[in-house]
Amino acid sequence: MSFALDPRLAADTHAIGALPFSELLLMDDARFPWLILVPRIAGARELIDLDEGDQRLLLGEIDRVARVLDELLHPDKLNIAALGNVVPQLHVHVIARFTGDAAWPNPVWGRGERVAYGERERAARIAVLRAALGGETA
Amino acid sequence: MSFALDPRLAADTHAIGALPFSELLLMDDARFPWLILVPRIAGARELIDLDEGDQRLLLGEIDRVARVLDELLHPDKLNIAALGNVVPQLHVHVIARFTGDAAWPNPVWGRGERVAYGERERAARIAVLRAALGGETA
Repeated sequence: MSFALDPRLAADTHAIGALPFSELLLMDDARFPWLILVPRIAGARELIDLDEGDQRLLLGEIDRVARVLDELLHPDKLNIAALGNVVPQLHVHVIARFTGDAAWPNPVWGRGERVAYGERERAARIAVLRAALGGETA
Repeated sequence: MSFALDPRLAADTHAIGALPFSELLLMDDARFPWLILVPRIAGARELIDLDEGDQRLLLGEIDRVARVLDELLHPDKLNIAALGNVVPQLHVHVIARFTGDAAWPNPVWGRGERVAYGERERAARIAVLRAALGGETA
């Protein structure tokens, strides 16, 4: 079995790039700066499905992406979560939260309607993120 | 500054024990098997506030606790999250989810009213968790 991105994740996101261990996606919801990491491990559903080495690779990429959001946006809080109740393929949300955002202080999932990015806004956000990640996205 | 558990976390939970790096708490909500890890690092709010070594210690304890819930309860999904929008002290939720539970498929936060454990039910759950964690809780 080879890795394939879950079609629901693919439909709701835009690709930012391939980190060494994970695909990095932008959730297509302009209300929140919301990234998703998907380890390229076929069949993984849970963090505990990864061995220790792979867990550490994922942790390193979570840390890197969270720092990029923190440095670019100075959010009031970061939300980091592996839930998967709807899409069981292992994926980790890294979201920059602000006290005035559309869901605060609640989590973002299932709150109101997603607001798709405009094309130029989306391209700009992806460009900024790619630049901040430097040569790390392929 | 020395570590002290946030009073809101203390009020909503019962202590299971002290893991080597984190305090392990049981959320006092009988609707969900819901554990919380709180690293004993004074002032930490975000995962990225921890250095790499401490992040790995936390990851190892998340993995251990998630495996215990998985082995004891065989949940349909694990939810693992560091949010902190209400209580900013760094804490990680590890929750066993079932397709028939009170919030499924939504996240548990802010869904319905918390249902406190009865005293005997709570004591039994804590005893089972302590036994499963073996000598790891002090």
